Amino acid sequence: MNQDRLRIAVVGAGKMGADHIDRITSVIRGAEVAVVVEPDAARAGAAVAHLPEATTRRNIEEALEHDSVDAVLIATPGPFHEQVLLPALEAGVEILCEKPLTPDPAAALRIIEAEQRLGRPHIQVGFMRRFDAEYAALRSLVASGDAGALLMLHCAHRNQSTGEGYVDSMLITDSVVHEIDVVAWLAGSPIASVEVRRPRRNSLAPSWLRDPQFVVFETQSGVLADVEINVNAQFGYQVTTEAVFERGVAEIGKTAGLSRWQDGRWGRSEHQLFTTRFAQAYNNEVQSWVDGARAGRVHGPTAWDGYLAATVAEAGVLAQETGRRIDIQYAPAPSFYLPGRARANALAD
Amino acid sequence: MNQDRLRIAVVGAGKMGADHIDRITSVIRGAEVAVVVEPDAARAGAAVAHLPEATTRRNIEEALEHDSVDAVLIATPGPFHEQVLLPALEAGVEILCEKPLTPDPAAALRIIEAEQRLGRPHIQVGFMRRFDAEYAALRSLVASGDAGALLMLHCAHRNQSTGEGYVDSMLITDSVVHEIDVVAWLAGSPIASVEVRRPRRNSLAPSWLRDPQFVVFETQSGVLADVEINVNAQFGYQVTTEAVFERGVAEIGKTAGLSRWQDGRWGRSEHQLFTTRFAQAYNNEVQSWVDGARAGRVHGPTAWDGYLAATVAEAGVLAQETGRRIDIQYAPAPSFYLPGRARANALAD
Amino acid sequence: MNQDRLRIAVVGAGKMGADHIDRITSVIRGAEVAVVVEPDAARAGAAVAHLPEATTRRNIEEALEHDSVDAVLIATPGPFHEQVLLPALEAGVEILCEKPLTPDPAAALRIIEAEQRLGRPHIQVGFMRRFDAEYAALRSLVASGDAGALLMLHCAHRNQSTGEGYVDSMLITDSVVHEIDVVAWLAGSPIASVEVRRPRRNSLAPSWLRDPQFVVFETQSGVLADVEINVNAQFGYQVTTEAVFERGVAEIGKTAGLSRWQDGRWGRSEHQLFTTRFAQAYNNEVQSWVDGARAGRVHGPTAWDGYLAATVAEAGVLAQETGRRIDIQYAPAPSFYLPGRARANALAD
Amino acid sequence: MNQDRLRIAVVGAGKMGADHIDRITSVIRGAEVAVVVEPDAARAGAAVAHLPEATTRRNIEEALEHDSVDAVLIATPGPFHEQVLLPALEAGVEILCEKPLTPDPAAALRIIEAEQRLGRPHIQVGFMRRFDAEYAALRSLVASGDAGALLMLHCAHRNQSTGEGYVDSMLITDSVVHEIDVVAWLAGSPIASVEVRRPRRNSLAPSWLRDPQFVVFETQSGVLADVEINVNAQFGYQVTTEAVFERGVAEIGKTAGLSRWQDGRWGRSEHQLFTTRFAQAYNNEVQSWVDGARAGRVHGPTAWDGYLAATVAEAGVLAQETGRRIDIQYAPAPSFYLPGRARANALAD
Repeated sequence: MNQDRLRIAVVGAGKMGADHIDRITSVIRGAEVAVVVEPDAARAGAAVAHLPEATTRRNIEEALEHDSVDAVLIATPGPFHEQVLLPALEAGVEILCEKPLTPDPAAALRIIEAEQRLGRPHIQVGFMRRFDAEYAALRSLVASGDAGALLMLHCAHRNQSTGEGYVDSMLITDSVVHEIDVVAWLAGSPIASVEVRRPRRNSLAPSWLRDPQFVVFETQSGVLADVEINVNAQFGYQVTTEAVFERGVAEIGKTAGLSRWQDGRWGRSEHQLFTTRFAQAYNNEVQSWVDGARAGRVHGPTAWDGYLAATVAEAGVLAQETGRRIDIQYAPAPSFYLPGRARANALAD
Repeated sequence: MNQDRLRIAVVGAGKMGADHIDRITSVIRGAEVAVVVEPDAARAGAAVAHLPEATTRRNIEEALEHDSVDAVLIATPGPFHEQVLLPALEAGVEILCEKPLTPDPAAALRIIEAEQRLGRPHIQVGFMRRFDAEYAALRSLVASGDAGALLMLHCAHRNQSTGEGYVDSMLITDSVVHEIDVVAWLAGSPIASVEVRRPRRNSLAPSWLRDPQFVVFETQSGVLADVEINVNAQFGYQVTTEAVFERGVAEIGKTAGLSRWQDGRWGRSEHQLFTTRFAQAYNNEVQSWVDGARAGRVHGPTAWDGYLAATVAEAGVLAQETGRRIDIQYAPAPSFYLPGRARANALAD
Repeated sequence: MNQDRLRIAVVGAGKMGADHIDRITSVIRGAEVAVVVEPDAARAGAAVAHLPEATTRRNIEEALEHDSVDAVLIATPGPFHEQVLLPALEAGVEILCEKPLTPDPAAALRIIEAEQRLGRPHIQVGFMRRFDAEYAALRSLVASGDAGALLMLHCAHRNQSTGEGYVDSMLITDSVVHEIDVVAWLAGSPIASVEVRRPRRNSLAPSWLRDPQFVVFETQSGVLADVEINVNAQFGYQVTTEAVFERGVAEIGKTAGLSRWQDGRWGRSEHQLFTTRFAQAYNNEVQSWVDGARAGRVHGPTAWDGYLAATVAEAGVLAQETGRRIDIQYAPAPSFYLPGRARANALAD
Repeated sequence: MNQDRLRIAVVGAGKMGADHIDRITSVIRGAEVAVVVEPDAARAGAAVAHLPEATTRRNIEEALEHDSVDAVLIATPGPFHEQVLLPALEAGVEILCEKPLTPDPAAALRIIEAEQRLGRPHIQVGFMRRFDAEYAALRSLVASGDAGALLMLHCAHRNQSTGEGYVDSMLITDSVVHEIDVVAWLAGSPIASVEVRRPRRNSLAPSWLRDPQFVVFETQSGVLADVEINVNAQFGYQVTTEAVFERGVAEIGKTAGLSRWQDGRWGRSEHQLFTTRFAQAYNNEVQSWVDGARAGRVHGPTAWDGYLAATVAEAGVLAQETGRRIDIQYAPAPSFYLPGRARANALAD
């Protein structure tokens, strides 16, 4: 393995970008923030205040041209991903792109086309749940066959509350998009249809939001997955999955840690934010990406997974708007993204 | 209250009837089994073997004519309920009818018409879950408003396995019928629509059965209730409900009792049969019925609840067969069954 | 079995007596309160207000002379038990005596001597924990040998708070006395020594009380049992036991029921009073006694168990006062109380 | 902070040393293994097989003389610690010493004397539990006062099984030594006395071992702490603590993660080894030491904590041998180890 540290350009210094900069600087081994790409000068300056060796750039082209950059971590909003991904691919650097890859399947296919001009995949998409220990344990249980075949997944995705810019379609595109990825990943089969039901509205949610909603996916293999998406759940941040197998049931996502008996009750603290619930998953994700990047491989979700998710999300919004069950069609899967192929290419580098 | 014991004719001495005979004899206060109505002579004889004062009859008419009977407990299969209910109503005795009241809404309406000729309700339907301590606690939480309005219910209904006579429609009419009752009861609103989805089939289920299935109800008040019905779940018998409120979430049905750490695992025993899981609920149900009967009242689910359930079950089977969402219409609700009315009539007796 | 109801004289109409009167009247099958023995006329009158057929008496002798009484339930304070037990034994009636049998071993031996003049045991002592489902499950696990031999018991006995009359010695004689019984019962071996340690004092306890305390018992078989006795624990009422076996560990007493997620926490309600925690155990205990009494047997803890507990409690108070480990000696065990003997006698009645 | 990586000499390449070498190489930021000190040449060679830049030495003196070493991590058995600690202190390098600091208090005092010749503490002792998230949460709860004063600690320390070299005294010196440290740390007060009780022996333990044992500590502040030390517990590896406060109770150490219902049971996997149970604690410990070392400070347990633990362990072995309660006296605490002093010195460097 290359002993030098991976020099990363972080694109976007908003909340998520700042969080990644802090992670790379304080937690991750074998990497450093070389550049922060951020058009807002004040924000850019704040992001590098404690990084004397990092520079700031207004756009990705400048960074790729002037700085010695091995890798790009994209933390801008989804609609701005394509304009970073294409030049980064052209430069041949390693990429970690926060979810979604792109908001729409057409843009995702353009990325995929561009990526295939390189000899092997260079993009990892930021579906960090795959790096959570409990999701990984559930995946292992599926793969082991110890509980028989997987039949159903019952998912709950609960946020404490949402802010001003959060609108109905984002229930699907910003929140359920995580379940879109992990449902297919856990089931080992792409999602074939989506239906959205609207339960009674939470009067504590913002007035413009129809929250919660209830989404039912079916995979091509017949696994039925339901998702309660509930983004003004008030009590905390909670993401759970119950998996129903032929011989038993498994559950992940319940709170661990110190139990306390006081004032007539016993219990535990619940998470308030995804940043604490998935802190270790984010660390694992970025470390895995850094290790993979230094070895010239992508170990996590690929651009193809990003395309699949964008396609399902688009269908989900249509299902949300129409109340109908929407069947989903995908472009043919390029062999480029097959695990074996990727591995072979990596060896051939 | 009448100090004499309620003299009960138990109709049907199959598994459920024998269980009720044992309960009345060993657990319930203020009641005794006076007659066992059962056409199968051997079965009837076995049922009264330890009840020297009880007689046996071949049909309900004989029992009502020849024996001093205060009340009838009906434990025959659903299709045979009407032929017992009508003469029992005509005799004016108190009735506990195992679920379902009748298999179809039309028959239920005939019962309801006959019952209204009496001054007050005389029939309690055997939806025993309402008498389970955890369901009651959940109902209290809904009623208290402490967690805000109820928005969703996630139900799982898992049996270890099913026998030869158990066919697809019974997933709805025999099993989900319990959820049909408690969903409306918990939500305080009748069910307005039903949809049935079919997940991947459990290969361990009998070949003729499409098991598990996934049912989505919506109440008139907008509460969405999903039910995993999974009657060959192998691992045990489990009935859980997760209730989603505006301010929080509540869950019932997880195993209590002794925890054990051994062989690299910790955990608890799971129920294997509904008879142990709901033993106390059955006891509470029958005791409540006996106490009500002696006071001339029905405290539990009424024949009207039985009609509502029969209507939803019929729609559920249609939903199961067609794959479509079925909207449900009910006959107008008679004021006869309003709680206040029933209470007033009881006082006026 | 005798089909008539057991006619019970309840002695003492304080809080515990009133609770038993209510239980016999509302829950228990096959028994009725025939007499309430209570010198305080107002209290006696209140106790029978809803029992038109029950009489009141000022002392046990009057009740035994004038009323038709099959059995006596003694719910007075421990120092007054002997004066009820002796005439009741002389009258040959069945007896349920609330714990302790007597406060001191000498009095207990007098009771035992008197009881042996009858052909078989007539006294059941009110150690109701043996009738709690979780204690029974733990006992079964010990007996099964499935986890290997029992090595240790870690017990916690926590009350919310204590009142004015509750003094240091009562930590042992009133509270730990329950553990004294169940430790020997679970281990299947009498207690051989006792030591009492005093942790830091809870400043919220009454000023005259050294609360909590920590008691270490050893059985003759070598099982070590520690008890945290903590009677001003503030948060609720909790009784737990962790049993350490050769192959694993088992735990009982953790709260069951509805789980709730709200306000950043998840958890369950804790009991506040022993009356709710052990409600079912009390019901089981009294029903078992009634059933046994009607069959001429004692199925629960006997007067000999009461003597053993009185002996350990006396040693416990000495250990508390001296800080020393106290070894315990018992009188020779009469064969009269051997389970087999009792059974043989019952058959010979 | 120094941007260069801390160059570490790892002393001892046995199981624990190899584990630390792997940790420093794969997990820890800002450090590298520069030297492996190990007299066994084969073992030394295996340890550096994947570390091309690391050298091997036969003893610590050679490493300090010939290699550029910033810090020493000592992973040899306790009796060999002093001979590494003294030259390392003389060389003025930073030290992480696996527990125990030394096996006996006299040696510990020699170390402490030598360390005080340096301007500030240089030794961190490997009590890694302080770096476990749940222990830290419990410490925070104590410090917050939210549950009132701490009164008692109930600890269980269970290993699956022990090997040939493990003898009775090691129950205290190797295993309970962790509780010795965390009890004083949680209570914020040194241990004042120790008593050891011997429950019934586990017949599955090695024949020469009296396992389990039961240890009762009292702190100078009056907190009573009991420890079940059970090193052939068979079922898994488990370390739990229940803390009793004036207003409530808190518990740590119960298994988290995926729950599974199968074969009539529900439950979770239990740990089998301390390496998985405390994996994150070890990582946190070493990272904290590396960060502190680079800043010229010791943030974790100091040599003084090591002396306190050695003193209690010695008394514990005496208590074990005699069956008596042993009171503990310490040498006067040098102001050198006061947190404030250490901090002031660090700033003055």
